[in-house]
Amino acid sequence: MNRMKDVGEFGLIERIQKKIGVIRHSTVLKGIGDDCAAVSLKKNEVQLMTSDILVDGVDFLSKKQKPIEIGKKLVNVNVSDIAAMGGVPQYALLNLSLPSATQWKWVNSFLDGVVKALKEQSIMLVGGDVSSSKEISGSLSLMGNVSKNKCIYRNGAKKGDLIFVTGLLGGSILGKHLTFSPRIKEVKKLLSSFTPTAMIDVSDGLLQDLGHITKQSRVGAAIFSDWIPVSKDAVTLSKKSRKKPIEHALTDGEDFELLFTASPKVLSKIPNLIGKIPVTCIGEVVDVKKGINVFPSPVDTRKIKISKKGYNHF
Amino acid sequence: MNRMKDVGEFGLIERIQKKIGVIRHSTVLKGIGDDCAAVSLKKNEVQLMTSDILVDGVDFLSKKQKPIEIGKKLVNVNVSDIAAMGGVPQYALLNLSLPSATQWKWVNSFLDGVVKALKEQSIMLVGGDVSSSKEISGSLSLMGNVSKNKCIYRNGAKKGDLIFVTGLLGGSILGKHLTFSPRIKEVKKLLSSFTPTAMIDVSDGLLQDLGHITKQSRVGAAIFSDWIPVSKDAVTLSKKSRKKPIEHALTDGEDFELLFTASPKVLSKIPNLIGKIPVTCIGEVVDVKKGINVFPSPVDTRKIKISKKGYNHF
Repeated sequence: MNRMKDVGEFGLIERIQKKIGVIRHSTVLKGIGDDCAAVSLKKNEVQLMTSDILVDGVDFLSKKQKPIEIGKKLVNVNVSDIAAMGGVPQYALLNLSLPSATQWKWVNSFLDGVVKALKEQSIMLVGGDVSSSKEISGSLSLMGNVSKNKCIYRNGAKKGDLIFVTGLLGGSILGKHLTFSPRIKEVKKLLSSFTPTAMIDVSDGLLQDLGHITKQSRVGAAIFSDWIPVSKDAVTLSKKSRKKPIEHALTDGEDFELLFTASPKVLSKIPNLIGKIPVTCIGEVVDVKKGINVFPSPVDTRKIKISKKGYNHF
Repeated sequence: MNRMKDVGEFGLIERIQKKIGVIRHSTVLKGIGDDCAAVSLKKNEVQLMTSDILVDGVDFLSKKQKPIEIGKKLVNVNVSDIAAMGGVPQYALLNLSLPSATQWKWVNSFLDGVVKALKEQSIMLVGGDVSSSKEISGSLSLMGNVSKNKCIYRNGAKKGDLIFVTGLLGGSILGKHLTFSPRIKEVKKLLSSFTPTAMIDVSDGLLQDLGHITKQSRVGAAIFSDWIPVSKDAVTLSKKSRKKPIEHALTDGEDFELLFTASPKVLSKIPNLIGKIPVTCIGEVVDVKKGINVFPSPVDTRKIKISKKGYNHF
């Protein structure tokens, strides 16, 4: 455990959580460990706070990808986190680190993307910071709100719940990782008819993000591969990657779809389609001792081995 | 205007402000352009939001400076912005970009510094993000609060007001830029007896930060160099720099003292000392047409030329 590559992304987050364990505010309903922090500021209203970094060469490629799309992505990855809590975004702080030699044309187009995505969600940029640096990177902190009884955490999944996902999964690297639409409208529609027991956005890969729900909810999960909504991009990518499309759907990062659990009692209230976006049941929540397993279908219980569990920084 | 070094730090901020001009929320009392954004969330209470980036090689030197002090600085530069609005910090989001080869020992000590500074101010870390990168950089977003009638902006200075500064100025590069104490206690004491008309923290250099107040308040300022509280470090630095100590006091960045204006009517209510921290009158607010000028004293009105106006990224 000498270097960050040994500690890993989740190791680092766990260590930070341990260190800061002592300071708590009674207003904080949820701190580190969910898509957003949730703070009780007004009666019946919760403020959501989230922040994401994008680094050149890691999360985007400044020399290959369109700066306007990178700018939109910086906003939308955060909007997706607000959506995953059931909320609506309101205020943003933008931080930009840029080499002195960066072309203004690039920065201008990047900022156009940021502003476009902000406008789409009626988010007001209220502050931030700029610095010179050796590599381009940006971070955005986003504040939003949600009524207290509609705020959905990762830790509420119960044994017997069904597991759902919006949209089609896998192969986002072919384009969707930049051009995705965060599921704000869809979440509003869903929450108008029922309340999920747990929710997360699929940013690290379906299995890994499902693992966040099961770990925090202290449950297990059975996923049925025949039920997974596989995207065309997952099929296209599989021709080059020597992986099956289903593997891409289960493990590729940055789909930015919503993964949620709900009681089977509300099944009739869950739409199959919101606009053009499918909402698909992909499995069920089981006892914690069973862990997470992938089976072909409920009637074919041979476990499917999946090699890679999603993205990990460092 | 092809590259960021031509656009400059303040050019970039102005261009961002122009681009985002369209989206406004009625709850936002102050957006971009002050030490913090100010949002009206509850009756009589304002939420403050601020964010600062620190980049290795620009804002700190990971190979020379102690990581624990760099961690403290990342928190305290933001706390200083909350203090400059009259507020108290509450919640933080931490973003860290680290090369995979970074020693855990360094990161561990850096995080200890972050946590120490958070504890000192009872700030709860509620979230953030981590990413791999080529250079070490960190950013922190900090939320705080202040009652509506005690929230101090940069734009309230009036002709005839007196100008004050806390502490001693200049030469912070010799150590204070890392080890400073943000003026939270001091601001609380000040606000208990009177209300400044405008306030800012001295991060870019006294003259440059005073320029932010005069520009936004549409006033000018006369500063008296004999009255400036010059630090010992400014004197020490002047022996090597070929500049006068007063030049360091007027233009060095990262003093993180408070610069504020107040009506002469409340002069008797302004303490000369808060604990061990001096509060010094350094000049007065004048008509906007006069600009900012430095004179030896009120009775010696030969203008003093100052070469450099403070720090500018890019």
